[in-house]
Amino acid sequence: MEKSNLIGSIDGALSSSNLLSERGLAYGHGLFETMRLHQGQLPLLSWHLDRLIRDASILSIPLQLPIIERHINDFQRYLRQQKIDNGVVKLIVAAGDGGRGYKNPATIKPRVICVYSDLPQLDHQGVNLWRCQYRLPSNPVLSGIKHLNRLDQVLARNEWTDDLYSDGLMFDQHNQLVETTSANIFLHCPRQGWLTPDLSNAGVSGVMRALLLEEIFPSLAKKVTVTDIDSDRLSGCDHMFICNSVRGLTPVLGFSQDQNLVTLTIGNDVKMLQSALADNYPCFR
Amino acid sequence: MEKSNLIGSIDGALSSSNLLSERGLAYGHGLFETMRLHQGQLPLLSWHLDRLIRDASILSIPLQLPIIERHINDFQRYLRQQKIDNGVVKLIVAAGDGGRGYKNPATIKPRVICVYSDLPQLDHQGVNLWRCQYRLPSNPVLSGIKHLNRLDQVLARNEWTDDLYSDGLMFDQHNQLVETTSANIFLHCPRQGWLTPDLSNAGVSGVMRALLLEEIFPSLAKKVTVTDIDSDRLSGCDHMFICNSVRGLTPVLGFSQDQNLVTLTIGNDVKMLQSALADNYPCFR
Repeated sequence: MEKSNLIGSIDGALSSSNLLSERGLAYGHGLFETMRLHQGQLPLLSWHLDRLIRDASILSIPLQLPIIERHINDFQRYLRQQKIDNGVVKLIVAAGDGGRGYKNPATIKPRVICVYSDLPQLDHQGVNLWRCQYRLPSNPVLSGIKHLNRLDQVLARNEWTDDLYSDGLMFDQHNQLVETTSANIFLHCPRQGWLTPDLSNAGVSGVMRALLLEEIFPSLAKKVTVTDIDSDRLSGCDHMFICNSVRGLTPVLGFSQDQNLVTLTIGNDVKMLQSALADNYPCFR
Repeated sequence: MEKSNLIGSIDGALSSSNLLSERGLAYGHGLFETMRLHQGQLPLLSWHLDRLIRDASILSIPLQLPIIERHINDFQRYLRQQKIDNGVVKLIVAAGDGGRGYKNPATIKPRVICVYSDLPQLDHQGVNLWRCQYRLPSNPVLSGIKHLNRLDQVLARNEWTDDLYSDGLMFDQHNQLVETTSANIFLHCPRQGWLTPDLSNAGVSGVMRALLLEEIFPSLAKKVTVTDIDSDRLSGCDHMFICNSVRGLTPVLGFSQDQNLVTLTIGNDVKMLQSALADNYPCFR
């Protein structure tokens, strides 16, 4: 390991923490995965690693998968030793040292960070969604990637404080529905069936979204159309759920519209999808 | 200070670094300033702090200016003790602990980070600019702010490796010129005079850009128009310079266009502006 010549301070105290030259902090140059820890295991690990590999190349971050797997493994072992079996493991793969200019260092040595947190409150019974005013910018290069530039989500999530709303619907600048601040969206319309927003220009391509599209919907012989969804389509839907890799599938009970709460019923399809997911992945029971 | 219950690892080693719960790393929730250190002083400090105050509120980061000034002051004193008088001081004001969800903590306690680096190579004689393919997304809420979400600049800066080009021209998705990866742009057209891109939808509103617009151009009784600049206007310009708070004003000698290098002359105006800047701020001599 090279010696750091870093001169820095944090809140007035001198520091040579090498995180001070981390491109993840300087520029958000990195990726993250938020993984459900269940009975000491990470049941969706392979899905998370698949996404990580796919996205890392776009940010020019070379991944050595065996090293990442070893660090995750060591961290899981430590958690087990501490009798911590359930919760969330956040994996950050940042672009490493070299925060002095936007140009990548000659060799990017990614830094692998694992952080544990307790499970958030899970709302299997359903949630209400705020309708965010903040609009996601269009970015075909970065769309889909779970990178560390998340000011869009921070600004949107802090539009409301009312606990009635667990999450918020996010739209793009053409008023097309994209996602919530921390989940993907599926909605059912009487005529078109199941729909989920196209993420070509904005949004995070979630692991749970992929798993539902590739495994769970097909297992029930149900079709989903990936498409543009405007406000009219949203208003016309009869069932909706949101999903992410920590919470699984969460029914939507209502969403805000013009100062009102539009209410929805959960519907049999959503219950069937929840059951099928729980059968395959018991952590989401 | 509350005790941290953080459980984390960095590259496999257990860590309780509180940077692991820093929203600046998790989401890029924070701001930065890159300040020229000259003879132990930060000549543009008040300009940087003015911008910081203006932008922090948009990210809901409460600033206690006396605390920030004290940390900067302490850091400068330390550098003087180390006989370090010239270089760059990067100030990061990050949103502090609370990286478990996008929702801001009830009270945001910003973390103030200072990092020193040596002066980069300065090209007072002029530089060539690459024409970046990557397009800046349109974002009227975040435009102008020097926040920590800088993947746009990272992706654009790494399009070229040829040392012929010191920086790159960046355009938005409507092909309007915005800035370079690390500087603002001013260009002179024979008919319209001095122009600089409007930053309402994309770009960083640089301290040096503000200083030139508010102090240096008026001191020479020269007018600048803030406006949209498309590729045609760019092609028609006869002089151009880029500017930032570390390098001051750098003439542009040429820029890439369709595999060619379009060359420019420096022109008397640019020399006069350089002189006026150096007279007022000797660090840019």
